[in-house]
Order: sequence, then structure tokens, then C-alpha cells
Amino acid sequence: MKTPLTIVKVGGNVIDDPVALDAFLQDFATLQGFKILVHGGGKRATKLAADLGFESKMIQGRRVTDGAILEVSTMVYGGLLSKNIVALLQKNNCNAIGISGADANCIVAHKRIVKDIDYGFVGDIDAVNTKSIKVFLSNGMVPVFCALTHDEKGQLLNTNADSIASNLAIGLASEYEVSLIYTFEKKGVLRSISDENSVIESIDSLSYTTLKEAQVITEGMLPKMENCFHALNQGVAKVIIGNTKVLLGKEPLFTTLTL
Amino acid sequence: MKTPLTIVKVGGNVIDDPVALDAFLQDFATLQGFKILVHGGGKRATKLAADLGFESKMIQGRRVTDGAILEVSTMVYGGLLSKNIVALLQKNNCNAIGISGADANCIVAHKRIVKDIDYGFVGDIDAVNTKSIKVFLSNGMVPVFCALTHDEKGQLLNTNADSIASNLAIGLASEYEVSLIYTFEKKGVLRSISDENSVIESIDSLSYTTLKEAQVITEGMLPKMENCFHALNQGVAKVIIGNTKVLLGKEPLFTTLTL
Repeated sequence: MKTPLTIVKVGGNVIDDPVALDAFLQDFATLQGFKILVHGGGKRATKLAADLGFESKMIQGRRVTDGAILEVSTMVYGGLLSKNIVALLQKNNCNAIGISGADANCIVAHKRIVKDIDYGFVGDIDAVNTKSIKVFLSNGMVPVFCALTHDEKGQLLNTNADSIASNLAIGLASEYEVSLIYTFEKKGVLRSISDENSVIESIDSLSYTTLKEAQVITEGMLPKMENCFHALNQGVAKVIIGNTKVLLGKEPLFTTLTL
Repeated sequence: MKTPLTIVKVGGNVIDDPVALDAFLQDFATLQGFKILVHGGGKRATKLAADLGFESKMIQGRRVTDGAILEVSTMVYGGLLSKNIVALLQKNNCNAIGISGADANCIVAHKRIVKDIDYGFVGDIDAVNTKSIKVFLSNGMVPVFCALTHDEKGQLLNTNADSIASNLAIGLASEYEVSLIYTFEKKGVLRSISDENSVIESIDSLSYTTLKEAQVITEGMLPKMENCFHALNQGVAKVIIGNTKVLLGKEPLFTTLTL
């Protein structure tokens, strides 16, 4: 019987709302057992870049991380958000430690290979260093990951927080019974985008194919869903998509993914 | 026989110079045994504050940390500098972990009591959590501290890096034989400010009094020296002031402080 471990990804919508963030962090602090938090970026980095007069370069609708934008991300994700989240968790008696993939060499990535588009300093993950993460967990610390990794050659890399969460889940699945919870602005995957309560409570790989074909699941949700199924295929015990209230069972509606 | 531990403080002059920083970090990575790095801020935070149009408020010549300046410090010290230093140390096979006093609750402080001047969000240190720091050291990690602490009530606080270094040294002195090395833009404490090589090689509490009375040691050096003697009084084995080359014995001139 493996020890349970809960990995929670919290997105920008919560990060950007101080009241929602405080409520979420209180819930996360209360969550029992081994746990890890992964936080996205929110709008603060975009605002800082704009305040500094850095233009966000977009190619085919995708943001490019040049050197200036990487510095902004490092300041906002690795500094402002990470350290404030940690201070708030500590206030709630949760012994958080705010780290990037560079710290204790936790997540190694490589700069995304240039095919059609050069995304700049964006990392695709190669390896999760479970040894360091186990040291934190087994000593009562709660790792809080921001969306930065490194390449072991001195280069920091902007890295998608959903991918960080699923890679951590997969990397730790051989030693822990991992539940991966993607929190989200909706209550789960919706059957009808206009009906907040039309949550599809369970999706397996077969029904996923049907939902894709019927275009119920489209666009932005597709990479998230692919991340989830990849995690399940790689031994993660449980994947849930829901709002932040699912953590403590305060919201009965959410989507559970199964193979 | 206690295990040796070297705590190195590196200041803004090195932080601001990429070539000097890279050379220093290579030396620090090579240093054998248990070690901790504490880094100051450099000019980057001042520049970011200016770029964002935040005026640095000064009262009686002392900088005041208002909410906006604390955010800038958190971004630059806790994010940009910390994560880049860690990535560069990792490149040099040093398993660094970049943390603030809030992370793993390592350093608890209180907002400086207002007497004549309200310095704002500036912390005076109350306690060093040696348990967390020992976990890092005994698992092959090298803690890299930035100049931020917290009050356990959710508030981050700007904190002098010299004080962080001496408080860490004192807190860990009962379990390790601590050498505290303050690196510095000079080769050590100078007898004559105009002669770079006029290093006073040894200062004890008696000669310190004489040097103060003769005004050889003045102004900015006084708080640093007080920190050093306080550390020696509290059980720190060795305190050295010198340039970054003392780490690996590449610079024969430096100042050793003794009681």
C-alpha cells in the first residue's frame, strides 16, 4: 500500500483574486497528508511586462518568451507569487517551501526545439528529481512549485504549470498513490459551456474520444485533458478537474478522469 | 568535534557584475563541506523601482520599505537574483536551493518597531529554524538565502543580508563549527581607505575599540563589525572579512576577527 500524495494545480484566476487565493490557501493548508501545490502565473506578469514597456511577442497566437519576458516571469512567478503564497500558507500552519525546478534540481527541462516557431525560453520537461522532493515531504515540508524549470546549464525556462503538475504526479507515482487535482474556474468539464452545472462527472478514454468528436471538449481543454490521460496512463491513481472547493469536499460537482 | 559549516555573504557589488558573479559562484561551488550562501540585493531592485516610477522614500538618510518597494524586493531578491544564482550553481554541480526566511519557516522576524522612524516592511530577526536548515544540509542541498524574512502572520519583510548571515551563523553554531565569511568590495578592513593593500589582518575586541576611537573604522563598517563581534560572542568559531577570492585561498590578504 503506497502512501497517498495529493498534487494540486491552482490557476491564474485564483492567483489574481486575493480573496479567492486566501480562501483557497486556507483550504489547501487544512488538507491532510502529503501534498504539493503547483501555481500558474496569473495576469501579474503580463501587467509587469506592460508597465516596463516590454511588448509580448506573439507568433501564430502563441506567446514568445524572450529574455526580458523570462526575467519578468522569474520575478513574478519565482519571487512575488511564490514567496507570498508561502508566507500565507505559513500563516495557516502549513510548512510551505516555494521552489522552482532549478531549486534542488527538482525539474530538468530543455529549451523547446525550434520547428516552425521559436518559442524562446520555454522548457519541455525531461526529468523530475524525486529524491529532493521526497526529502521535503518526509520532513514535513510542503513543496510549492512555480512555473519555472532549468536546463542544468544555467538557463531558467518558463514551463507550463499544468505540465509541471502532471510530470510531478507521474514522477512520484511509483512511490506514492498520487491524486492529481487540477483546479479551474469552472466546476469541471462542462457538457454545455453556458450551463455552469452541466458537469460531466466521469470521463474515460472511450467517452473522451466521443466528447472530442462531438466537439463538446474543444480548444483550450484539449491539452489539459491530454495531460490528464497521460498521467493516468503513467500510473497516477486519480485525476480530478474541478473548482477550488473540491479540495475539502465543499463542492459535490467535479469531473473524475479514468482510463 | 563539530562538523565544519561555511556561511558566505556576498554583496551587491558582485551581484551587479555578471562576470564577477559567475567567477564567484564557480568558486563557491568548488568550496568543500557544508555551506550556505546569503546574497544581498545589488542595484537591480533600485532600477526596477525607478523603471516602475516608484520613488524610494528616504527618512533621515534611511530607505523606507513601503508596500510597492517590498513587492519590488520580493520580485528581485526572491525571484530574479535567487533563481538565477541557483541555476548558475546547479550548472557548476552545486545542488543549490534558493529560499527566503518564509520558506520552510527558516527565519522568523518582526516588523521593526516604530520609534522615531517607521522603516515600513523591514524585519528584525527573532529566530532561525535550524531544523529545516539541517534537513537541507544533511541531504546534500546548499541553501541560498535572499534578504527576505516573514513574521509567521503572512507578512514578508525586507531584511538586511548581513544580519541574515550572522543570525544563521549564531543559530547553527551549537551544532556546527561555523566559519562566517563576509565578502566585500575591499580586501578586508583597511587601515587607510586610499590604500587597497593596507588590510588589517587581525582585529580583536580590544583593537576594535582602539580603531573606532582613532576613527580608522567608521560609518558603514560599524554595523558590519558589530554583527561580526556579536556572532563571535554567540559561539561562531571564525569570522572573516575579505574579497570573494578568499574563499579558495586565492587572496592572501583578509581580515580575521577574534574576541
